[in-house]
Amino acid sequence: MKILTPGPVPIPDFVREAISQAVIPHRSAEFEEMYAEILSGLKYLFQTEKGKVGTLIASGTGGMEILMHSLFRPTEEVLIVSNGKFSQRWADYGKMENWEGKILEKEWGKIADKEEILAQLHQMAAPRGIVLTHCETSTGALLDLEEIAFALKSQFPDLLIVVDGVTSIAAQAFYFDDWHIDAALVAGQKGLMNPAGLAAYALSEVACDRLQPTFAGDFHNLYNYVQWAARNSYPFTPAVNLLYGLQAALRYIQASSLPVIWNSTQRAARVFRAGIREMGGKMLPDVAAESLTAFSLPGCDSQALLAALKAQGFWLSGGQGPLKGKILRISHMGPQADAAVMEEVLAALRAYPR
Amino acid sequence: MKILTPGPVPIPDFVREAISQAVIPHRSAEFEEMYAEILSGLKYLFQTEKGKVGTLIASGTGGMEILMHSLFRPTEEVLIVSNGKFSQRWADYGKMENWEGKILEKEWGKIADKEEILAQLHQMAAPRGIVLTHCETSTGALLDLEEIAFALKSQFPDLLIVVDGVTSIAAQAFYFDDWHIDAALVAGQKGLMNPAGLAAYALSEVACDRLQPTFAGDFHNLYNYVQWAARNSYPFTPAVNLLYGLQAALRYIQASSLPVIWNSTQRAARVFRAGIREMGGKMLPDVAAESLTAFSLPGCDSQALLAALKAQGFWLSGGQGPLKGKILRISHMGPQADAAVMEEVLAALRAYPR
Repeated sequence: MKILTPGPVPIPDFVREAISQAVIPHRSAEFEEMYAEILSGLKYLFQTEKGKVGTLIASGTGGMEILMHSLFRPTEEVLIVSNGKFSQRWADYGKMENWEGKILEKEWGKIADKEEILAQLHQMAAPRGIVLTHCETSTGALLDLEEIAFALKSQFPDLLIVVDGVTSIAAQAFYFDDWHIDAALVAGQKGLMNPAGLAAYALSEVACDRLQPTFAGDFHNLYNYVQWAARNSYPFTPAVNLLYGLQAALRYIQASSLPVIWNSTQRAARVFRAGIREMGGKMLPDVAAESLTAFSLPGCDSQALLAALKAQGFWLSGGQGPLKGKILRISHMGPQADAAVMEEVLAALRAYPR
Repeated sequence: MKILTPGPVPIPDFVREAISQAVIPHRSAEFEEMYAEILSGLKYLFQTEKGKVGTLIASGTGGMEILMHSLFRPTEEVLIVSNGKFSQRWADYGKMENWEGKILEKEWGKIADKEEILAQLHQMAAPRGIVLTHCETSTGALLDLEEIAFALKSQFPDLLIVVDGVTSIAAQAFYFDDWHIDAALVAGQKGLMNPAGLAAYALSEVACDRLQPTFAGDFHNLYNYVQWAARNSYPFTPAVNLLYGLQAALRYIQASSLPVIWNSTQRAARVFRAGIREMGGKMLPDVAAESLTAFSLPGCDSQALLAALKAQGFWLSGGQGPLKGKILRISHMGPQADAAVMEEVLAALRAYPR
């Protein structure tokens, strides 16, 4: 069975072997040596030299909520750009945390541009930050993060830019320092080709200054994580075996180089989309990320097509929320979703009776 | 190297092999079938028929804080019994969450009895719940949970009893239903012989009724987890590979039976403590759990002893907080810390020059 869901992605053998290594106690020089290597690999992954990086035991949602909780306080004005299932979560989370501010809500599959975002910010009294979902996994829509962040920092230099990079970082171009991002998160089960359960963050100096000291056991606040990471350590019992997997993935990514990996994701996406267009199919988002394609084929029931593909050994995802039953989603992340595999899926789609 | 730290414990080969299986997408009948088996195994583990069980992506601390956050609201009166590093965390957490109530603070290594606890509760206006740390990992001290819970429910039938079972459940006797516990948590890297990163909970009907609905993406509130577990599913991307490991451990525990496992832990603890007593050594806690021993040897510098043992292939832990440098801690959890291994450590201790 070829797993082609946009998370989890298949775990390569070298990652699975790494994960099954014997555990080492985390309060040790051995652990710190491993964690130092991981932190260095994460700096490369996020493309940051000045930023502070680290890991969290969390799914993407858990990690994003820890990030947001740590950076914004009740009654602060935060703008959330929402255009799908996951970005909607950050809007709901902000309401629960009693942020003031606004939600810029776009239809699922549409994207917000810098003008719309700036217009919203200009209506706010003292905007403190913004939460942007780089690639919205429910639709595959991609924000032009570089352009938006540049425009934001030009007009609102103190605005904290928080990015959900769960389905973009490690799969396609992302430059934490160059784009002036303040906080970003990635989750293991996407471009990092790892099991779910581990997330990684990067924080700018300004974001670090925003963190408020808390008691030693507060797992929901980044403050302690950042303090301990400075000593190559972790405030709680870390998921050592998942860190082995992350270490292996980061070594692979560094040995391959990010541009080569980004290019491979992009190539798989292009091959797949060209084939879909040829069949008269339709891509859902206005602007699509490289990491996944959300699409439909005319005259095809998406649920039936999903089942037929699975019967042939290709496990794709369907739509979520309002898109349930209306689209299919296929991942281009990781070495097991490359252009050759995309050709196989296209062949199965061409053979599907319409 | 024999890992004998009281968490993480060594991961048996059958668990490591299980974890390295290929990932399956979680929105599927295949996942639900696996999760149904895990939930059934957890009911056996917690010894509950009526309770609701489930898993969380979290370390022990993360899991306990999710449990407490879900069950108590600001200004409610909660009693925390604190006698070490981890129970102190729950006291700190309660302060942060703005609970009213009290902290019954005992010296590290000492335990509270039912009379002291009841006396504290009688001084409170409307006690809503209590947080008890069954085995305090920093000292190995064990509360008499059965007796305390019986006394509490006799005098305060509506009191919610929340138990940190991180280092007790799966290692020694624990009966969720019979002892009338309302909420309990265990973490993977202890008696469950798994990597850290996954925790499991049990909730009584009364505890479930306390949960308040929240938005779909709230990872910090048990409400959604319980709703989804009723359909053998999980509200977020679950740590599928860690669940494979949990499944393997639960199968092993059910095949062996809990009493056999509890007995094996107890036997390792007895053998070890008899040897330490023979050498004139001292056990730290008044009443010790079976899962670990915190001890010191007269005339021995604990740090030097720790280093000497590690050089011989036995990796134990030292003390934490005020006990740093004063004690050693050794795990009796899991098949790789059995009586035979304890004899080996004792031989090394006997040979240590004093």
